Amino acid sequence: MKDPIELAAALASFDALWSPRIVTRVNAYDVRIAKVSGEHLWHVHDNTDEFFLVLDGELHVALRDGAGSERTVVLPTGAVFVVPRGVEHKPSAAGGASILMFEPTGTSTVGDRHDDVPAHVDATTGHALR
Amino acid sequence: MKDPIELAAALASFDALWSPRIVTRVNAYDVRIAKVSGEHLWHVHDNTDEFFLVLDGELHVALRDGAGSERTVVLPTGAVFVVPRGVEHKPSAAGGASILMFEPTGTSTVGDRHDDVPAHVDATTGHALR
Repeated sequence: MKDPIELAAALASFDALWSPRIVTRVNAYDVRIAKVSGEHLWHVHDNTDEFFLVLDGELHVALRDGAGSERTVVLPTGAVFVVPRGVEHKPSAAGGASILMFEPTGTSTVGDRHDDVPAHVDATTGHALR
Repeated sequence: MKDPIELAAALASFDALWSPRIVTRVNAYDVRIAKVSGEHLWHVHDNTDEFFLVLDGELHVALRDGAGSERTVVLPTGAVFVVPRGVEHKPSAAGGASILMFEPTGTSTVGDRHDDVPAHVDATTGHALR
């Protein structure tokens, strides 16, 4: 059994942006944390919802519906939001943010369908905390 | 699709202790928040891990292994901890705390096996936020 993990210390252990660390697992789900700044990319998870909790800063999540119409939700520190499966979305954080995510183990950061992956985005299923 | 939910506002919307509110759902999982103070009860979830994040205050989780030996982990604000399935545990918070939990929808607050449920503990699978 793992000991408790302080998120502030876990966040202080890495600098990479858009490159989630797996803090712990709950059944077949990962709890991941990430530092983010600037824009991620448009992507879709076809088979899973994706949970966001903002630990620090402000996260924007742009959402596109089936008809291509867009809106953006704003998550201040301490807000939670779930992107339902199948909904195209693009997270961003102009001023930087730290976030916690809850998603099935093996879920890719760039989803099942996505735009070209820019160099600043890590296409990964999450990295171990050191 | 739900709008983002600010946890501070969600926590301010109820007073009941040891009585989780379901903030949102992620696939077949609930994200629940609870206000806690004093002691919960010894219980076990036979078929699921249970994730705790301390939003405010300090949470203690007493743990009992198969041989009956006990230890207590201490979670300050901002710490996370997972109680593995099958592990007997008893949360407590002498000074009060606010916590966030991830667990499969339908999971009972008192688990599958438990001590007598004291009057101050709500045996529930979670309540809707108002």
